[in-house]
Amino acid sequence: MSVIRKQHGHFLEDFQPGDVYRHKGGKTVTEGLFAIFTDFSMTANPLSKNARYASAYGFEGMVCPPGLVMVTVFSQSVEDVSENARANLEYVDMRFGVPVYIGDTLEAETLVLGVKASTRTPDLGVVHVQTTGRNQHGEVVLTFQRKVQVWKKSPTACVAEGEVAPRDIPVSLELPRYDRARDYRALAHLSSPDTYVEDFHTGDVLEHTRARVVTTEHVMLTGILDNTSQVHCNQWMVSEAPDKFVGGQLIVFGGIPFSLCLGISSADVADNALADVRYATGRHTAPIFAGDTVFASTEIRGVRELPGRPDLGVLDTILRGHKFVKKADGAERVEIFYLEREVAVKRRSHYA
Amino acid sequence: MSVIRKQHGHFLEDFQPGDVYRHKGGKTVTEGLFAIFTDFSMTANPLSKNARYASAYGFEGMVCPPGLVMVTVFSQSVEDVSENARANLEYVDMRFGVPVYIGDTLEAETLVLGVKASTRTPDLGVVHVQTTGRNQHGEVVLTFQRKVQVWKKSPTACVAEGEVAPRDIPVSLELPRYDRARDYRALAHLSSPDTYVEDFHTGDVLEHTRARVVTTEHVMLTGILDNTSQVHCNQWMVSEAPDKFVGGQLIVFGGIPFSLCLGISSADVADNALADVRYATGRHTAPIFAGDTVFASTEIRGVRELPGRPDLGVLDTILRGHKFVKKADGAERVEIFYLEREVAVKRRSHYA
Amino acid sequence: MSVIRKQHGHFLEDFQPGDVYRHKGGKTVTEGLFAIFTDFSMTANPLSKNARYASAYGFEGMVCPPGLVMVTVFSQSVEDVSENARANLEYVDMRFGVPVYIGDTLEAETLVLGVKASTRTPDLGVVHVQTTGRNQHGEVVLTFQRKVQVWKKSPTACVAEGEVAPRDIPVSLELPRYDRARDYRALAHLSSPDTYVEDFHTGDVLEHTRARVVTTEHVMLTGILDNTSQVHCNQWMVSEAPDKFVGGQLIVFGGIPFSLCLGISSADVADNALADVRYATGRHTAPIFAGDTVFASTEIRGVRELPGRPDLGVLDTILRGHKFVKKADGAERVEIFYLEREVAVKRRSHYA
Repeated sequence: MSVIRKQHGHFLEDFQPGDVYRHKGGKTVTEGLFAIFTDFSMTANPLSKNARYASAYGFEGMVCPPGLVMVTVFSQSVEDVSENARANLEYVDMRFGVPVYIGDTLEAETLVLGVKASTRTPDLGVVHVQTTGRNQHGEVVLTFQRKVQVWKKSPTACVAEGEVAPRDIPVSLELPRYDRARDYRALAHLSSPDTYVEDFHTGDVLEHTRARVVTTEHVMLTGILDNTSQVHCNQWMVSEAPDKFVGGQLIVFGGIPFSLCLGISSADVADNALADVRYATGRHTAPIFAGDTVFASTEIRGVRELPGRPDLGVLDTILRGHKFVKKADGAERVEIFYLEREVAVKRRSHYA
Repeated sequence: MSVIRKQHGHFLEDFQPGDVYRHKGGKTVTEGLFAIFTDFSMTANPLSKNARYASAYGFEGMVCPPGLVMVTVFSQSVEDVSENARANLEYVDMRFGVPVYIGDTLEAETLVLGVKASTRTPDLGVVHVQTTGRNQHGEVVLTFQRKVQVWKKSPTACVAEGEVAPRDIPVSLELPRYDRARDYRALAHLSSPDTYVEDFHTGDVLEHTRARVVTTEHVMLTGILDNTSQVHCNQWMVSEAPDKFVGGQLIVFGGIPFSLCLGISSADVADNALADVRYATGRHTAPIFAGDTVFASTEIRGVRELPGRPDLGVLDTILRGHKFVKKADGAERVEIFYLEREVAVKRRSHYA
Repeated sequence: MSVIRKQHGHFLEDFQPGDVYRHKGGKTVTEGLFAIFTDFSMTANPLSKNARYASAYGFEGMVCPPGLVMVTVFSQSVEDVSENARANLEYVDMRFGVPVYIGDTLEAETLVLGVKASTRTPDLGVVHVQTTGRNQHGEVVLTFQRKVQVWKKSPTACVAEGEVAPRDIPVSLELPRYDRARDYRALAHLSSPDTYVEDFHTGDVLEHTRARVVTTEHVMLTGILDNTSQVHCNQWMVSEAPDKFVGGQLIVFGGIPFSLCLGISSADVADNALADVRYATGRHTAPIFAGDTVFASTEIRGVRELPGRPDLGVLDTILRGHKFVKKADGAERVEIFYLEREVAVKRRSHYA
């Protein structure tokens, strides 16, 4: 007889550049997951709200918003990649593929691109990975790189430092074609009249006026994604080690402010989007805790054409999230999230 | 470059009698929304619980309870009508149409019936509207009037005072016909034996013995309805302005106690109902906050026949909600909700 | 006119050995209920996560995890059996039948096996029942006995003491047959590589390293199951009578730690299970409150063959739940749940 404490996930010394992890579980998008996560995030795009509208545009049904696709694929990678992480440092080159519908099953795998031990802290290092999620037909729905700060299990263990090149993951953003025979204008009242490509100007900054508090619901939201990281749900563990765990508070899973910032921005910049195309880079610049109210703003950095789609344009934006923290002399605005975001938006000339 | 703070929703000076708002979004009733909202409310009617039972009665599937139909249609009108409201004053002549099923897409529009500036408060006034929700076939599922106290954006702005007549919105309560060939009695154990028309007597008051606390879940419940009002979810905003926002607390969206009172009452008065028919008038008489426990009672004001349906009767009732508030010398019972409610209930003679 | 306070549920003096209650309501498993309850519990078995995997194994679709089947059937019995209970004492001989799928409608009935007044406390006694849940085809999905401590309504009422024999409820655990033509190995990466029958040894104790806090979400989780017991959701009632209700706190419905312990254990002992077979006995050994973090461990008591299924084995285990309670001199580990659990697990020889 023996007492076994299975350690889940991997430590720095377990990663080898070139390793591939095919993640456990997989995840079928039920109407439960779809409704809870889509609506929690305050998404305003009718493609994720209204089946009549989505069908009229030529989609197979309501479309998962980008935040839900991202958190579903990402969460599958947590056990293998970041269950023993200290911090998620950066998202790089996140690209969206075919639309995700209710009923789709997403599975994910991760290639280890790089491993590097910290020169300052003997029990930490950075793992650089490339994660790809596919649907039940094998089509890519999302691919991205991320850099994670991971604990070593043993401070003296050898680390397989090195780097390999990322795989070339062909991603095709499959959007229904523009069809003159469809009466898009009859649906135009269902989205904002002033969020078409023609309405955006380089340099504008939209301070989104709506915001939303995150409650202890975050524990359930994280659980429903199968995200296994303990720092989001093991209250006893973090309470017992406040020095290690930001004062003994559960940290809200980054996917939650990620989705929420996308959702908060959508009434002003994306309720006439057909898809998010790519996030060049992104990071969580401060943690969120239950009780924090999340705000967001969008900076328009450019407006460009989408080759082959005269009905659409691409907005190059920076989406920033922030919260306010009380100080003796008032409130400080603290940036919590930064995302370089490219969105494919409809032109008024074609749709309204 | 400019910083843009888009103001969502309308202010008193934006409303003109006779204006029609076709609301954004629309909403498909997913199994997620259905399960969460139906069950949250403690509904006891098997039509909203048990697909076998609903089908055996001739419905196409499980039936959305009236509270869910109401909050789904209502919430779509919030951005245009009441995102900048101070208070929801009254519901008038709320009538239900065809049953709503999982998978239906509801869209809504609102006609402005009246606008009136306050004579006492320069920055307030009352807007009177008529909102109608329809399914994807264009059939009316709900129509109602409401009166809302709305802020002016500029205290000196002109207000387009006036009134127009409400539209005549034909509503047909489409219930499956009574069919002698169906074995209703084989299902009678699935609902209460003592909530048939024959069991109710004018003047009786049923103090419903079950109650339910509202937790911070209300933020998610309100979000899942796409209700965009900030007073229900923007904790920072209300904390910073306690004088404006009832002491700095998030107010629970009225649709939540509305649904909850309907649900709490259902085990005693509506688990043998086929439908709610009409609410002549209703109002929220005190706010609800997270932590409050909601109770309800039903007064039977009349029991009458439903023309053409000898198998059914109509109960004319008053549904009241209340909570208890601690006082120095005990607890005060505070009424929170008042609804004149007409319910179509089965007769024991035909069903049990 | 009269004021009526309908008492729901039964009291000790209402029960007669041999009585059968056909419970109200019934419950269709929506994708909302499935997603919320399955994922809340941290279940790791892909059969409840991944429709592609479940179909490849020959199931009709994703399979409800045992905890969801149990709480759904159990909750239907609450109004009749335990709405007026003081404590749930013991589960006995809980056996699972055919798999439960999304869309199934479960209905339940309960036979009263025994009634016994307390010799020490005049207003209490024990009711012993046998509850059986069936799907819309009449197939048994679950049957179990339980013993409940129930209040008398009147301390002087007569109690119909006595016992009858339990019914013989034939239960067949219908699992898809092992089919050499299926390529199970192509799916093996979706579950753990070290949780096959061959990996378990009698006497081993697995201390599951993951844990999860229960938040006030428990009120909604209990409501979504139609569990009508007031001690889980009527905050006012319990706050007003702290002596009667464990200090004035809402007790978390036992089905929640029951499901959560099953889920927490699954990554280590049941993500390669095809089904839970039987729980010989089980009990809640301490209450859980919002804020408690639930941990679990599994003791392997035996590993045996499953007649007719060389591809499977049965683990005889004890699943224990615990929480930690702060004490002056540290933390005390308090057992909260005990379950003798038999699980049908795949053999590596056949599947990986």
